[in-house]
Amino acid sequence: MRFVSDNAAAAHPKIIEAIAESNRPDTAYDGDQWSKRLDGVFSDLFETKVRALWVSTGTAANCLALAALCPPYRAILCHREAHIETDEAGAPGFFTGGAKLVLLDGPGAKITPEAVNAACDRIWKDVHQVQPAAISITNATEYGRVYRAGEVAALGDIARSRGLALHMDGARLANAIATTGERLADVTWRAGLDTLSFGFIKNGGLNAECLVLFKTELADEIEVRRKRAGHLSSKGRMLAAQILAMVEDGLWLKNARAANSAAQVLAKAAPGRLLHPVEANEVFLKASAEESAALRAQGFEFYDWREGEIRLVTSWDSDERAVQMLAAASAALG
Amino acid sequence: MRFVSDNAAAAHPKIIEAIAESNRPDTAYDGDQWSKRLDGVFSDLFETKVRALWVSTGTAANCLALAALCPPYRAILCHREAHIETDEAGAPGFFTGGAKLVLLDGPGAKITPEAVNAACDRIWKDVHQVQPAAISITNATEYGRVYRAGEVAALGDIARSRGLALHMDGARLANAIATTGERLADVTWRAGLDTLSFGFIKNGGLNAECLVLFKTELADEIEVRRKRAGHLSSKGRMLAAQILAMVEDGLWLKNARAANSAAQVLAKAAPGRLLHPVEANEVFLKASAEESAALRAQGFEFYDWREGEIRLVTSWDSDERAVQMLAAASAALG
Amino acid sequence: MRFVSDNAAAAHPKIIEAIAESNRPDTAYDGDQWSKRLDGVFSDLFETKVRALWVSTGTAANCLALAALCPPYRAILCHREAHIETDEAGAPGFFTGGAKLVLLDGPGAKITPEAVNAACDRIWKDVHQVQPAAISITNATEYGRVYRAGEVAALGDIARSRGLALHMDGARLANAIATTGERLADVTWRAGLDTLSFGFIKNGGLNAECLVLFKTELADEIEVRRKRAGHLSSKGRMLAAQILAMVEDGLWLKNARAANSAAQVLAKAAPGRLLHPVEANEVFLKASAEESAALRAQGFEFYDWREGEIRLVTSWDSDERAVQMLAAASAALG
Amino acid sequence: MRFVSDNAAAAHPKIIEAIAESNRPDTAYDGDQWSKRLDGVFSDLFETKVRALWVSTGTAANCLALAALCPPYRAILCHREAHIETDEAGAPGFFTGGAKLVLLDGPGAKITPEAVNAACDRIWKDVHQVQPAAISITNATEYGRVYRAGEVAALGDIARSRGLALHMDGARLANAIATTGERLADVTWRAGLDTLSFGFIKNGGLNAECLVLFKTELADEIEVRRKRAGHLSSKGRMLAAQILAMVEDGLWLKNARAANSAAQVLAKAAPGRLLHPVEANEVFLKASAEESAALRAQGFEFYDWREGEIRLVTSWDSDERAVQMLAAASAALG
Repeated sequence: MRFVSDNAAAAHPKIIEAIAESNRPDTAYDGDQWSKRLDGVFSDLFETKVRALWVSTGTAANCLALAALCPPYRAILCHREAHIETDEAGAPGFFTGGAKLVLLDGPGAKITPEAVNAACDRIWKDVHQVQPAAISITNATEYGRVYRAGEVAALGDIARSRGLALHMDGARLANAIATTGERLADVTWRAGLDTLSFGFIKNGGLNAECLVLFKTELADEIEVRRKRAGHLSSKGRMLAAQILAMVEDGLWLKNARAANSAAQVLAKAAPGRLLHPVEANEVFLKASAEESAALRAQGFEFYDWREGEIRLVTSWDSDERAVQMLAAASAALG
Repeated sequence: MRFVSDNAAAAHPKIIEAIAESNRPDTAYDGDQWSKRLDGVFSDLFETKVRALWVSTGTAANCLALAALCPPYRAILCHREAHIETDEAGAPGFFTGGAKLVLLDGPGAKITPEAVNAACDRIWKDVHQVQPAAISITNATEYGRVYRAGEVAALGDIARSRGLALHMDGARLANAIATTGERLADVTWRAGLDTLSFGFIKNGGLNAECLVLFKTELADEIEVRRKRAGHLSSKGRMLAAQILAMVEDGLWLKNARAANSAAQVLAKAAPGRLLHPVEANEVFLKASAEESAALRAQGFEFYDWREGEIRLVTSWDSDERAVQMLAAASAALG
Repeated sequence: MRFVSDNAAAAHPKIIEAIAESNRPDTAYDGDQWSKRLDGVFSDLFETKVRALWVSTGTAANCLALAALCPPYRAILCHREAHIETDEAGAPGFFTGGAKLVLLDGPGAKITPEAVNAACDRIWKDVHQVQPAAISITNATEYGRVYRAGEVAALGDIARSRGLALHMDGARLANAIATTGERLADVTWRAGLDTLSFGFIKNGGLNAECLVLFKTELADEIEVRRKRAGHLSSKGRMLAAQILAMVEDGLWLKNARAANSAAQVLAKAAPGRLLHPVEANEVFLKASAEESAALRAQGFEFYDWREGEIRLVTSWDSDERAVQMLAAASAALG
Repeated sequence: MRFVSDNAAAAHPKIIEAIAESNRPDTAYDGDQWSKRLDGVFSDLFETKVRALWVSTGTAANCLALAALCPPYRAILCHREAHIETDEAGAPGFFTGGAKLVLLDGPGAKITPEAVNAACDRIWKDVHQVQPAAISITNATEYGRVYRAGEVAALGDIARSRGLALHMDGARLANAIATTGERLADVTWRAGLDTLSFGFIKNGGLNAECLVLFKTELADEIEVRRKRAGHLSSKGRMLAAQILAMVEDGLWLKNARAANSAAQVLAKAAPGRLLHPVEANEVFLKASAEESAALRAQGFEFYDWREGEIRLVTSWDSDERAVQMLAAASAALG
């Protein structure tokens, strides 16, 4: 009964089917019929002209975008617990050629306009200090919190007024949208976003994410950087086909809703233990070492977080019975 | 009737099956049961203890290895027409942090001991000139030529005596082995190789290559670099499963033999036009613009190479009838 | 009446003399008679065999050392207000190829063993998080605080036990030694230091710092990196001659004592306003905007620090009368 | 009797005087009165508005410019024997973050429009091959050959039509101008140059070069890169003062003429041995090992170049008697 990570879930059967169906000779790299459809499909989905590039990991998607938005000698503002800071092995430093991450605080791994302004004001405007070039936010955040369109727009306004680019790590954007019901356009480009890593892997995909460029003129550079980073798969149709399968019949939303629902079951079972409001598919609970051990003894697998805290992650294929059992077990802890 | 590139071929059905079979929840990244078997399977295959890491492109495999073998301030010797120089968008510069490629000449994109020695002797032993750290060879080469074990060993001797590492880009190593019948051990570590990119994608795989480390102590660093480059797939079992499917029942050799046989049919049809001996699955022919157009008019697709030259590439799934037709058409050119 | 920075002071006349005397043809780069004496002179000074390389800025000295101590994919622990973090334009990221600075807190910009241990313990030992490789401390710190030999040794012990290298930014090491009277050996290599940027420019030099390598085997790599970073001056004798002039007759200590004495005069004049104990040549005072303006109106130049704080820096050539006047003016603020 | 390198010569006495005179407290870095005059003085000298930044080595000047002109994923075209390729320890790779040098051939280390066009035409316009971004030429070249204004303009035309930037390594530009008598404006920006490393160190300076930006909008970025590379000296007035001393009274031309004249004496003594026309201050002669030894036995110091070749370099302070003696000795070889 796995609640360790949505990363570890299986891919949805339709994804495997899509891979199998796309398995025929075609132009190599991204010249095939599947890859060529991405721009159009995502332009429709986002209600504006975008460029949409497949990439095989979220780290690659984030860091290719950041490298195009931030030169080596400038900085990216992000939350202290952002995935790009804590879980990508320094990939932003590698892809950008040494740019700096300036770490902000904020509840639930969300960054606030105040935090951005304070950080920027603290930097002296001279050559001795590294000047910011971009802001990166994660939606839903690493603690399962969600930015509403208005919150992103507030950051977008600051970004524009300070000359900063705005990127969103949307590894769990589907879960955010499943919760808010907002339009993708509203929480992205209308709110000032330049680039978006639209995640599918944690949501039932196998190994394809989509880097969506609202600032379409970045595409040429990013295509070169993608190749240069060894991320231009020669049989890229298998990546495009996965993404199309996720998007075209609304599978992305259906999967996210399933994962979110499971998380709500867990959240409602132990409201007094919740460390963060549950707005996506992650549930962080207070739990002593003994309590945590007790849950594990019943067959539940999950991460210990900080001392006295555990993380439970649901996914598109969370087993309903396992979820109910974990809910009951959590409730039973008292 | 495609003879453009083995890159563009479909994956073998067993590969798709292997992906489908591995599609169940397991530990994320490379902690799953498939990934964990790679070291053992490749140690058996190579008759020595190796570390074997999946990567999703040949560029990544080559450049992760080179980054571990060559510090940013040193150089890699390779052929002027090596894939790492001509077709990886400068990836070696990116992964190494600015190391230099020193380009050697040699027939059929093979480098010779003489060329290596001459290049090294030309470099002054001071801080002003970039000192070499590694040699990289491609086997089979970009012109479909094959290094025999003895030839690799001659380069390995030089490498050892000059303190250089030795890497092999084996994107088409299977084709080479299918031709020579040599043992993998003989043409790799026994010949002095430190690292090998063992290619499967051009040989019926979908998106998995195997980076084989004979110098096993490099594994820790390369695992970090793989993550940092966005190449640690969270559902890595789909990569491991492909590789296992290729290796465990000898599919890699079977596929390579099929591709090589098709190339021999083409080679024998136009012996007077051959620009290089055909030892793998690539056939380079002299062909005037008119001749090339005539072949295209008959429905054959292929690359124009240099002026008056064309490149025909066969693959594991080359259609036998199409091969025969192309052979006949080439012969008919006179 | 300048108290802005010791950076802006003139060079000591003996430095200019040394440059003039060394101005004759000799071997280029560092093959001249002055450069060749550095290793010996510094080995004597530090009572152990060291390698000593001239560099023309402190940023270069720090970052060349850090690049040799920390690979691109690992991290350097330093104080949040360390010069390498706040005043070098991201140079550590550039020289290392993207390594990360992990920022620690601690009073007076000193880092404590507890802070180092806590930071290291917080990092998960896997490929997802950037593992530390080195600690960098500044002595005297950016707030004019001094590490005693025992304090450095405590950090050195942690470094050794955790497999980390230890670097000291000694831009104001002379001021520290002038205060403590400790032996250079005790506060450096005997305390576990691997590399030291020994600063002279803030202490009466013109443009020469000395990078002292206790881990002498780093010298070859650092010499290459120095050249590669454009820091191998062709007439390097002018740098070596400055350093020799500073060291050989104890000028470095004499100058530092003069600067420290001036700082003590300022410190004693306004003991109630001191933000940090004054242990070197920097004095940080509480001062309202009005008080700060009042001092400026009397002709004193200095930096505003954070709101309500000012920074006064003395130097080897601080004018005694100006110091007395500033002391009186500070005291008069009440 | 040194003919090894103009690098190793002494600085002109006026340079030492200028350093001594500038040795007083002033604003740190480049905020002082000397540094602030550079833009104006060089704008006058070049008859157009330029930005002029001091740097302490030619390698830094070249590579800061190239890093601003060429992103990490593109290439710089230069001669196979260009200083940036052969003598800067890979600094272009370091400063640019991994850009590639594409090496061209051409007599006397000069590159021709044909060579540039051929190299560009050979690069496929796709993401697999590294696209060029800039051309770098050296004037006078590493073999003492000179580009006339018309020749630079021909390269400038190609650069403009192909969207490439054009940089000149002018380490010996003074020697070139001393020979041609051309206006600086004509051989630089009027011919299409974007940036120029104007060298003084080989021409009687001590450690200051001037990076002249005709594309003035590059200045902000390059100032940040200069700091980030550890090249923003805190007492930068000593660098500015040197440059002003070289430029303001025409010392740069006077020194170059002296060096060139000495070279002509050597050239005329052995016309049959000349490997290249002598247009600056370098003389390359055919000389067998025995002949070379014979010259050395008479006390002359110089570099052996390729087998059977020697390089003689004169400088602003070449001793007239030594030059005459070397001329006689060369002539006597027969």
